[in-house]
Amino acid sequence: MANPPEYLTSLFTSYAAEPAETRPFVTLTFAQSLDGKIAGAGGKQLPLSGPESMLMTHWLRTLHDGILVGSGTALNDNPQLNTRLLPPAPADAPDRNPRPIIIDSRLRLPPTCKLLNNYKAGTGRQPWVVSSEPSQRDAEWEARRDALTAAGARVLLLPEHSSAARIPALLTLLRAEGIRTLMVEGGAAVISAFGACATTCVNTILITTAPRLVGAAGVGYEMPEQDDEHGFHTVETRLVGRDSVVALRRDA
Amino acid sequence: MANPPEYLTSLFTSYAAEPAETRPFVTLTFAQSLDGKIAGAGGKQLPLSGPESMLMTHWLRTLHDGILVGSGTALNDNPQLNTRLLPPAPADAPDRNPRPIIIDSRLRLPPTCKLLNNYKAGTGRQPWVVSSEPSQRDAEWEARRDALTAAGARVLLLPEHSSAARIPALLTLLRAEGIRTLMVEGGAAVISAFGACATTCVNTILITTAPRLVGAAGVGYEMPEQDDEHGFHTVETRLVGRDSVVALRRDA
Repeated sequence: MANPPEYLTSLFTSYAAEPAETRPFVTLTFAQSLDGKIAGAGGKQLPLSGPESMLMTHWLRTLHDGILVGSGTALNDNPQLNTRLLPPAPADAPDRNPRPIIIDSRLRLPPTCKLLNNYKAGTGRQPWVVSSEPSQRDAEWEARRDALTAAGARVLLLPEHSSAARIPALLTLLRAEGIRTLMVEGGAAVISAFGACATTCVNTILITTAPRLVGAAGVGYEMPEQDDEHGFHTVETRLVGRDSVVALRRDA
Repeated sequence: MANPPEYLTSLFTSYAAEPAETRPFVTLTFAQSLDGKIAGAGGKQLPLSGPESMLMTHWLRTLHDGILVGSGTALNDNPQLNTRLLPPAPADAPDRNPRPIIIDSRLRLPPTCKLLNNYKAGTGRQPWVVSSEPSQRDAEWEARRDALTAAGARVLLLPEHSSAARIPALLTLLRAEGIRTLMVEGGAAVISAFGACATTCVNTILITTAPRLVGAAGVGYEMPEQDDEHGFHTVETRLVGRDSVVALRRDA
């Protein structure tokens, strides 16, 4: 298969015809256990997705300009956020990898992480690190910023906002920087934060459910109530390997 | 279709060959939302299952001697717990309805509930109400018991046990009364209580997931961690209408 499956591309058809000017089209996506956990006890990363839905996720990444994770995920999982599972593209094809974007208010991302190594090796786009303007720029902050910049990252500063305004402000910043489509992958805090403003900030929610129980000690997430009248409606439900995949869309 | 689908009957093949002597074979089953909620805010009943998985649930009921719910479900939902959605059986076929069993420590079940009305009308088996022996049998307790008995219920008394021993004692009682196979359907407290002792008291967990979000205010449940070595393993995952159905089995 050389292209993303049709059930994924069809999710974005209406957007592609009419891209928003002020915010990216946002896809909130994550893998969960049957009992709604996205990580094990203490945030431990779990291999929830089967191989077929991992492949699906990599196809989904090709459909987005940017891919966003929180600093917890970046530190705990050291992810690559690229499309390495896909069959090779023709040599002259455009880069299919989305741009990694890390919300990292304290600039904790290690300069030796895979995202920066991949960029240096030419196998990934330049990561953007979105931080907050510190209340005062001390030497330690400057050193962390300089180390990340020297390692290849681009550091973007987002002014401080109230918690409710933070994600809208982030989306405005990313759209101004050219991100038209954004895939939000994790972790729990980022998923719950986008969930809390999903009825205004998220266009598609795509949840992969693995057929196993993580148990009550696992890490859950919070989603808004689905309201058929002016919220999300279910547009897709299918088995992908042994996982089930559900896609919800919000009417524009 | 005149018989239960093969993927359901196959779940019980090994049990049918070798029924346990001391406890029923227990199937824990419930419908949940995509975000792992089994009821709305305040325990409000939600139409989670689609028509296809409702039908599956009624077939599953035909495979069990008893069907157990808590008093909260019996009071809030006034359920029938029968197999009315199925195509008619031949006139000489044995009764396919499982016996309704209600855990009702305070004998709150109304004598006018559908379960008792169905029994009186000949369209359901006699409900069993499992209560605790009260610390003292006062007139009010005797009156409630007599009203339930007069309305057709059989009241079974379970001696007081510590919370950890309550479900094993209940299962021993039900097996002694002839229940070889028990389907546990809800509500949240009963599901979590059976979940807490699932590795010794539950044989099959069957979860139907509807493709919608109930939101953080909904009622969740607690399951134990699935441990591939000596816990549950996944034996079935399929789409039933727009819902996904996952069955887990515990090795004997």
